Amino acid sequence: MNSMRTLAEASKRAARALAVATTAQKDDALRAMARALRAASADILRANQGDLAAAEASGKNAAFLDRLRLDGPRVEAMAKAVDAVCALPDPVGEVTERWARPNGLSVKKVRLPLGVVLMIFEARPNVTSDAAALCLKSGNAAILRGGSESFASNQAIAKALGEGLASAGLPAEVVTLVPSTDRESMLELLSLDGLIDLCIPRGGEGLIRFVAQNARVPVVKHYQGVCHVYVHGAADLAMAEAIIVNAKASRPGVCNAAECLLVDAAVAKDFLPRAGRALVSRGVELRGDDEAQRLLRAAGVPVTPAKADDFGREFLQLILAVKVVNGLDEALGHIARYGSEHTEAIVTADKAAAQRFTREVCASAVMVNASTRFNDGGELGLGAEVGISTSRLHAFGPMGLKELTAQKYVVEGDGQVR
Amino acid sequence: MNSMRTLAEASKRAARALAVATTAQKDDALRAMARALRAASADILRANQGDLAAAEASGKNAAFLDRLRLDGPRVEAMAKAVDAVCALPDPVGEVTERWARPNGLSVKKVRLPLGVVLMIFEARPNVTSDAAALCLKSGNAAILRGGSESFASNQAIAKALGEGLASAGLPAEVVTLVPSTDRESMLELLSLDGLIDLCIPRGGEGLIRFVAQNARVPVVKHYQGVCHVYVHGAADLAMAEAIIVNAKASRPGVCNAAECLLVDAAVAKDFLPRAGRALVSRGVELRGDDEAQRLLRAAGVPVTPAKADDFGREFLQLILAVKVVNGLDEALGHIARYGSEHTEAIVTADKAAAQRFTREVCASAVMVNASTRFNDGGELGLGAEVGISTSRLHAFGPMGLKELTAQKYVVEGDGQVR
Repeated sequence: MNSMRTLAEASKRAARALAVATTAQKDDALRAMARALRAASADILRANQGDLAAAEASGKNAAFLDRLRLDGPRVEAMAKAVDAVCALPDPVGEVTERWARPNGLSVKKVRLPLGVVLMIFEARPNVTSDAAALCLKSGNAAILRGGSESFASNQAIAKALGEGLASAGLPAEVVTLVPSTDRESMLELLSLDGLIDLCIPRGGEGLIRFVAQNARVPVVKHYQGVCHVYVHGAADLAMAEAIIVNAKASRPGVCNAAECLLVDAAVAKDFLPRAGRALVSRGVELRGDDEAQRLLRAAGVPVTPAKADDFGREFLQLILAVKVVNGLDEALGHIARYGSEHTEAIVTADKAAAQRFTREVCASAVMVNASTRFNDGGELGLGAEVGISTSRLHAFGPMGLKELTAQKYVVEGDGQVR
Repeated sequence: MNSMRTLAEASKRAARALAVATTAQKDDALRAMARALRAASADILRANQGDLAAAEASGKNAAFLDRLRLDGPRVEAMAKAVDAVCALPDPVGEVTERWARPNGLSVKKVRLPLGVVLMIFEARPNVTSDAAALCLKSGNAAILRGGSESFASNQAIAKALGEGLASAGLPAEVVTLVPSTDRESMLELLSLDGLIDLCIPRGGEGLIRFVAQNARVPVVKHYQGVCHVYVHGAADLAMAEAIIVNAKASRPGVCNAAECLLVDAAVAKDFLPRAGRALVSRGVELRGDDEAQRLLRAAGVPVTPAKADDFGREFLQLILAVKVVNGLDEALGHIARYGSEHTEAIVTADKAAAQRFTREVCASAVMVNASTRFNDGGELGLGAEVGISTSRLHAFGPMGLKELTAQKYVVEGDGQVR
């Protein structure tokens, strides 16, 4: 049981060295890590095949297998992501604000690393390299605790990353894959207040709840996305159709996919049949409230009744809850009740409605006339991300390099006293 | 026991109303609160006299009594602080960044309130009105849980604030003083994840540790200040003397007061006698390491031996630990080991030394040629503050209005899909 404390102490020492490393040192290491990933592609895919076979045998669903699966292009994408992080500006030392005080003091806010970041994740093996690269560039030591289902993949990836790090002369403990996937070692890690500066859990409700209940270290939750697309009465219906199809069907297994369509009664009769047909042709199962069922059935579009718990539910599959609402107030009320503060979208040509929606909806990203799928670090221009925070503290939305830093005040004077 | 949940649920409802209140509504309420504080001054002072008498009878020390004591000017200062918060710009709705993506999406980061903020504090009654005003202006409902020693003072202040709120038409539950000071009700409050969005504990080590150990809600710690002044070999010694006297003696009971003086061996013989005399003349007891004792005694300045635990200790009184170090590396090592990441100062005319100090010291504020006492929201230009965070997550240093908000992404498009 002491092994986790020993592991974290080594990470803390490595973090102190990394905090004062130069940008050039960190970039050398990142380039070497990307090269090592490419060189180890065959090993990584072999390990992933084993993980996939076991997951299939244990009956995991399609969304789970999609998150777990690697292939040549996905490994290349992982290496490219490391190179892309290398190309981003170093956030450490960045002066974000600067002002002078009447007494002549000069005040700056300057970014510094957080220290040691513990990532807890489930099936996505690419998190191993993404998180390692983002932590390294932002000067943080990373402790990576993946799920048992992707353990062989994670080991193969971490081995390659370690070879890259070693060739660049940074301490190996800058990136550590936790060698066990049992709950006891996770519990021990979560208790190490003072050694671990931030824990980022990414995964299903059970995992997040377990971490939140048991952590003595600070946690930024990366929770589920119960994302809505609200088609307002003043929407361009062709635009709305393209947006809901993209939001639901382009990659249903991810957290920024839409789970519920809200349609204003004023346009539901025109909109639901066409949007319903488009969704069904993409393989989507529609689960409607009474009015949505009536309108869809009248147009010959297949629909099943939504159960009460289909609203507020993260399907992560080609299933969409559909509800007809009486205007903006009902839509806002539904989202406040059932949304998960992840991503919410309105489609409307009415500026006042859009403004009220963006002002009143509490979510990490509020979209106007755009797909929920854009709530993503890359798409929003942050570079890569360690995930999407649904906590409001510290970071809300995609966490990129800047969100992995803190800021200190640096105050320069010429002898000022109070 | 259910009363704390009921109380927090009422705060959550009030927070939802407050989140969409206009700046004018909030400012009306703040002005009314300031007026009500002034009108209730006699009642507040009477209540405070009772608290003070009880604290004196129970043998509290001078620093504690200083924090607890109110007088006419201090009540007026509380009302002025509320007016000052009213005069600050409303952070809610502020667009902090804005950029466009190649696909035409417009991305903004927009401030929103955190929700419900729980302040847990000990003896300072002014925290009641300071925290209430800052929370209200930033759109957050405040739950204020003060210590038993200041309970009568806090009640009198909260009563006045409530009268002000009522006259301005905002829900009374926007500001709630917890009606009990026992640990059971605090424990219940700390368990209310989902109802309380942030807990800010301010006080001694025991309180902070209790909160950190027991909270299921997010916590930003406002911990002790073990602040150092490091007099570098290239320091202007007159400036250094003025800074250490101010940092130690101007208000020893506060967290940004200095607790330890580090002096480079190269200037210790010149500096310690003059600085020692100045400090002793202000009533400061010096506790030196061997070399500091030798130099001070040789100059006839009274000094006692520092015990091992005098380094890293927050005296909060007119006591100063003194140590002679061999240059910047030893000073950085001492601060890394004994500092509390609150405030650290260097006095030097050497730019390279100052740069290394500001880069390598991890503290919420790093001062160059200025007193540690400037680590304060008002002094740094943030307006009032709810305290000084020693957590690196979310906010590091003084927490003013902006630090009581989160930021969401608002993304505007014209039909973009991925």
